[in-house]
Amino acid sequence: MISCTRKIEFDAGHRVVDHHSKCKFLHGHRYVLEVTAQAEMLNDLGMVVDFSLIKNIVKGWIDDNFDHNVILSSKDKILGQAIAEYTGQKIYYLANNPTAENIALHLKMEVMPKLFTDSSFQIVKLKLFETPNCFVEV
Amino acid sequence: MISCTRKIEFDAGHRVVDHHSKCKFLHGHRYVLEVTAQAEMLNDLGMVVDFSLIKNIVKGWIDDNFDHNVILSSKDKILGQAIAEYTGQKIYYLANNPTAENIALHLKMEVMPKLFTDSSFQIVKLKLFETPNCFVEV
Amino acid sequence: MISCTRKIEFDAGHRVVDHHSKCKFLHGHRYVLEVTAQAEMLNDLGMVVDFSLIKNIVKGWIDDNFDHNVILSSKDKILGQAIAEYTGQKIYYLANNPTAENIALHLKMEVMPKLFTDSSFQIVKLKLFETPNCFVEV
Repeated sequence: MISCTRKIEFDAGHRVVDHHSKCKFLHGHRYVLEVTAQAEMLNDLGMVVDFSLIKNIVKGWIDDNFDHNVILSSKDKILGQAIAEYTGQKIYYLANNPTAENIALHLKMEVMPKLFTDSSFQIVKLKLFETPNCFVEV
Repeated sequence: MISCTRKIEFDAGHRVVDHHSKCKFLHGHRYVLEVTAQAEMLNDLGMVVDFSLIKNIVKGWIDDNFDHNVILSSKDKILGQAIAEYTGQKIYYLANNPTAENIALHLKMEVMPKLFTDSSFQIVKLKLFETPNCFVEV
Repeated sequence: MISCTRKIEFDAGHRVVDHHSKCKFLHGHRYVLEVTAQAEMLNDLGMVVDFSLIKNIVKGWIDDNFDHNVILSSKDKILGQAIAEYTGQKIYYLANNPTAENIALHLKMEVMPKLFTDSSFQIVKLKLFETPNCFVEV
């Protein structure tokens, strides 16, 4: 089956609670997200889905929630509140540690289904680069 | 099973007939094509197939047909003829819109089977980047 | 299932015995290896496995065996001994030609199982770039 993929980048801070090494420090990454859609048939224009539709919808959500923000575990609310009070930003909390794995799973399982309800294609895969040398796929 | 992949680049113009936005304008891309071959067993040299054999055969076809050319829908022959009369090039027509999806499908279903008849390996996948941020896989 | 991948680079020389063209000459590449691990469940930190654990273990082995070394077929011991006598390096021999395919298979089948005995994740895929335009997957 044919698939199409759109790459979207964003900058976000995070930290891994209970990590034994420097991942426990608050830091940031230039994340690169690849969103892959698949369809049984191409649409009338000859596309799985317009690349720009994926970009606009996903980038809209990313810009509103992740980009130039901090993603924290919900166990990290004391830190999050300290940051939010000082900068005025709305911290994005995940149920667990904001590892690349958990960020990708959250996007795949909870965010994408809400963003894409059109049944002509499905979001079948996400690839999330935490750095140019480290990525996860779900 | 083991696979080997060769990347090949080309520059081509296209437009998407009936697109609601700027993809309907004649424009061009630096396409990047990844051709993946798979074999049950490695050959005597220890290869699925020599990378340079894929490159020579596919790049030969690409250079003769797609590179520095315009790929158009067969519904776009009036435009194609106007260009061809002016420049002398031989426009490449697809049955439908020259989206990344249709270009990749055409290469996979019609071109590759003619280029590779050696039964020791199969072309199992094509990945076609329309831009560094947009690609299809078939 | 979710996977995580760590990219590791190394420089090594090789040659392909009996190749009809210039691959028979001793030469070198900047190899890029992508090591993909998969797990049924994420660990307590929310990871398949810490990216840095894969890097440290695999890069340790790569640095000790492949990086700044020459990888040769065991049929190529006369050449290997001539080099080793002159430079003092410990040539790395494979049973067959050191093609990208055979290097990747050797890493996947023989090296990885010895490096990773933790049963909480498996090394499910290796992708090895011989050049930026040529890679194999196993």
